[in-house]
Amino acid sequence: MANEAFDFELIVLGAGSAGLGLALFMAKAKLSVLLIDKTAQDVGGDCLNHGCVPSKALIHAARQVHQSRQAARFGVQVSGAADLGRVMDYVQERQAIIRRHENPDYLREQGITVEIGEPRFVGPHDIELNGRTHRGRRLVIATGSRPRQLAVPGAELVAHYDNQHVWDLRQLPARLLVVGGGPNGVELAQAMQRFGAQVTVVHSDKQILEKEDPSISAVLLERLRGEGIDFQLEAKITAFSNANTAQVRHADGHETAVEFDAAYVAIGREVGFNGLQLEKAGVGLDAHGHLVLDEHLQTTNPAVFAAGDAANSLKFSHGAELHMRLLLFNFFSPIKKKLDYDHFSWVTFTDPEVAHFGLDAAELDKRGTAYERWETDFAADDRAVVDDYQYGRLLLFVEKNLLPGTKRRLLGGAMVAPGAGELVQELILANSSGLGVDALFDKIYPYPTAARINQALVVSQRDISPLTRLALDFAYKL
Amino acid sequence: MANEAFDFELIVLGAGSAGLGLALFMAKAKLSVLLIDKTAQDVGGDCLNHGCVPSKALIHAARQVHQSRQAARFGVQVSGAADLGRVMDYVQERQAIIRRHENPDYLREQGITVEIGEPRFVGPHDIELNGRTHRGRRLVIATGSRPRQLAVPGAELVAHYDNQHVWDLRQLPARLLVVGGGPNGVELAQAMQRFGAQVTVVHSDKQILEKEDPSISAVLLERLRGEGIDFQLEAKITAFSNANTAQVRHADGHETAVEFDAAYVAIGREVGFNGLQLEKAGVGLDAHGHLVLDEHLQTTNPAVFAAGDAANSLKFSHGAELHMRLLLFNFFSPIKKKLDYDHFSWVTFTDPEVAHFGLDAAELDKRGTAYERWETDFAADDRAVVDDYQYGRLLLFVEKNLLPGTKRRLLGGAMVAPGAGELVQELILANSSGLGVDALFDKIYPYPTAARINQALVVSQRDISPLTRLALDFAYKL
Repeated sequence: MANEAFDFELIVLGAGSAGLGLALFMAKAKLSVLLIDKTAQDVGGDCLNHGCVPSKALIHAARQVHQSRQAARFGVQVSGAADLGRVMDYVQERQAIIRRHENPDYLREQGITVEIGEPRFVGPHDIELNGRTHRGRRLVIATGSRPRQLAVPGAELVAHYDNQHVWDLRQLPARLLVVGGGPNGVELAQAMQRFGAQVTVVHSDKQILEKEDPSISAVLLERLRGEGIDFQLEAKITAFSNANTAQVRHADGHETAVEFDAAYVAIGREVGFNGLQLEKAGVGLDAHGHLVLDEHLQTTNPAVFAAGDAANSLKFSHGAELHMRLLLFNFFSPIKKKLDYDHFSWVTFTDPEVAHFGLDAAELDKRGTAYERWETDFAADDRAVVDDYQYGRLLLFVEKNLLPGTKRRLLGGAMVAPGAGELVQELILANSSGLGVDALFDKIYPYPTAARINQALVVSQRDISPLTRLALDFAYKL
Repeated sequence: MANEAFDFELIVLGAGSAGLGLALFMAKAKLSVLLIDKTAQDVGGDCLNHGCVPSKALIHAARQVHQSRQAARFGVQVSGAADLGRVMDYVQERQAIIRRHENPDYLREQGITVEIGEPRFVGPHDIELNGRTHRGRRLVIATGSRPRQLAVPGAELVAHYDNQHVWDLRQLPARLLVVGGGPNGVELAQAMQRFGAQVTVVHSDKQILEKEDPSISAVLLERLRGEGIDFQLEAKITAFSNANTAQVRHADGHETAVEFDAAYVAIGREVGFNGLQLEKAGVGLDAHGHLVLDEHLQTTNPAVFAAGDAANSLKFSHGAELHMRLLLFNFFSPIKKKLDYDHFSWVTFTDPEVAHFGLDAAELDKRGTAYERWETDFAADDRAVVDDYQYGRLLLFVEKNLLPGTKRRLLGGAMVAPGAGELVQELILANSSGLGVDALFDKIYPYPTAARINQALVVSQRDISPLTRLALDFAYKL
């Protein structure tokens, strides 16, 4: 390096999940760090401001409203729809609590230099911000992503929201159109239907949550239809003929119309680096406008890295966390780790939840890994019986070992059930720690916890072979 | 053995959790097994008929009723008390579903010989039942336990129920007196309060759930008091002066009266072997009337074993499961395992749930194990914030290692939080598989799952020492 005089050991562009984690660790290690975001309000990133935090608070409120109607079965009188204004008050109150630890002043108290503004590169190590230049030994682009916009004729006529603006709604639309049946679309669709809206979801694929195994997402679809949501699959909105009418083309070519009062758009996210002047730093983009990155999240400039949604991989808060951990490890270690999603997991926070971890069938087939597919419904599970969710389903991919007695690792799996996101945690731990399925077999579970289903599936796959039977008979009579 | 002609390889007295598991495995291994219970209805044991199954169904109904009142916050109109008759219909319907796999006919289809009646020993290997004698190579006493009766003057005047009879209630008592603040008492107390009864709990100890760490049970107590339950601790009922009045003596000696309409008695369980003629089999009892057992659950007759509540240890369904597994292992293995509760866990299914696993402070102190006590409240946990349970608490006991870099095992812990029974499952797995706390540190948790609190506590205990800081500084600048 020509000039070793750095103003900061690390400059982080973006104070979302990745940026906060990076800056907090650097400060804890007493290494100078500059954290930049556009506005003070943007600190916390999409997760706190528009994403996981408000949506999970909304889902909590929706679950309580739904449970209240279920309670009518036991004689309590329940009536009326939810007041969306009061729900949104709750959502904002929850955000305010988390913001106590995610705001510029708090971060400055932790030893981080925080600047607010629109940064741009002016050299390989140099960022210009509010008329000043800051030189960093290393820099991380963690500028996040934004919702993809609906490019359909007539969209400008329609009151439509995405995850950045839906939190401004104070009145429940009587009829809500949701565009997109991915995690974001179905979570909001269910919440709004539970509050009392009539929701229609238009989705291009033949299944909702198309990253999930069809046997898993089918269970959720049936539940959501049972709550009254109208799903139109393999369907596309071709135009809006007026503020309340969408034209929908179906797989077989015929067209129908959906009448609605407001629309929620959840058709994915996109990244962009406008204004960053990446070319001044020698940071390259590919033909799609994505950062060119190696498996260490390093850009074409060796001093500049990417993390979180800006790295254009799985767009989850904990994806940003994975990146953040990888970068910190590699910054401080002579041996560099590669980015690896083999133990990655995610949860869709519908009710029932859909949880997913490790490798799926497509990936295992691609790798040529020998595996078995183990699955069970929850019909005979005691907890599912007492808590009334016998519709649940668990799927595991287990290493196929030809040698008996060797450890059979858990390669991946998925679950759909109330609380599935928690019930799979021990499976994720087994997967990420390289435990064999025997570890689940050998555990004693408190009765009647819901996680017993994990063991039940493992136990059900243990057969007693004729040879084992002879050995057992002999041993028993000793 | 003088006479090798056995009618059955195993005879099991009692078709509860232990007995069913033993008989089903024997049948699967094609070894002849006789399973005996008093009545066809008793199959499934206390768990199915009077214990965990009906109580968890009741708790589910109570949670829905409680959630319905919570939903009023979001504008839904809710009024009235629950109809206990409808709740009990739900409870019985749930039991009927589980009974499909726990009844004589189903068990016979699995290859088990099932007899109904009152057995008694007539020799070391011999059971007489309904006028016939059956000789077993091995025999297991798994006859369970029964609720301890209230021995208080005037008890005969009072409409009182225990876990065997409370399921007959069809009308909610306006005022319910619960005697005993252990798991059984507090679970029922909360359910009944939520249905609309005014509940008073009288408990002899200074804390409820006295097997729990005081920091954990205090959180539950505060929540339950917040729901309106009147707890009288360090208090004893000395007499009932009439059908609706209990005299209560307090720690300081003063006496008060509690008015009530019905009483629920939850003062523990007792075992008894009346009618079994244990002396004919050379099966010994101690001064308390408990079976004399070695650490393999073997009685003073080498052919006779005990399992479940009859073995007079921790009285849980999954305790019976632990016994059942130990017996099966030892029956088929030349190396015998000893009974070991080091990784045992249990859950009290109140809301919030209280979960407990592994060794507690008292046991660790007794063993002289070096450990650290790590604990956190849930105030800053994102999931606790969005789902409104910032009162939660997690406690871990972690091995104290003087050598840096060595694995630090998780020795035990406890949690109070909604769903705690599920959230501790990965901790139980780490504990029972001998994983270090690093396995939790290294995991990537889907955001915002509740189980992240487990990692958060581990992370919070990692400090960067001045020496590490220097090393980090050096490594970063390489």
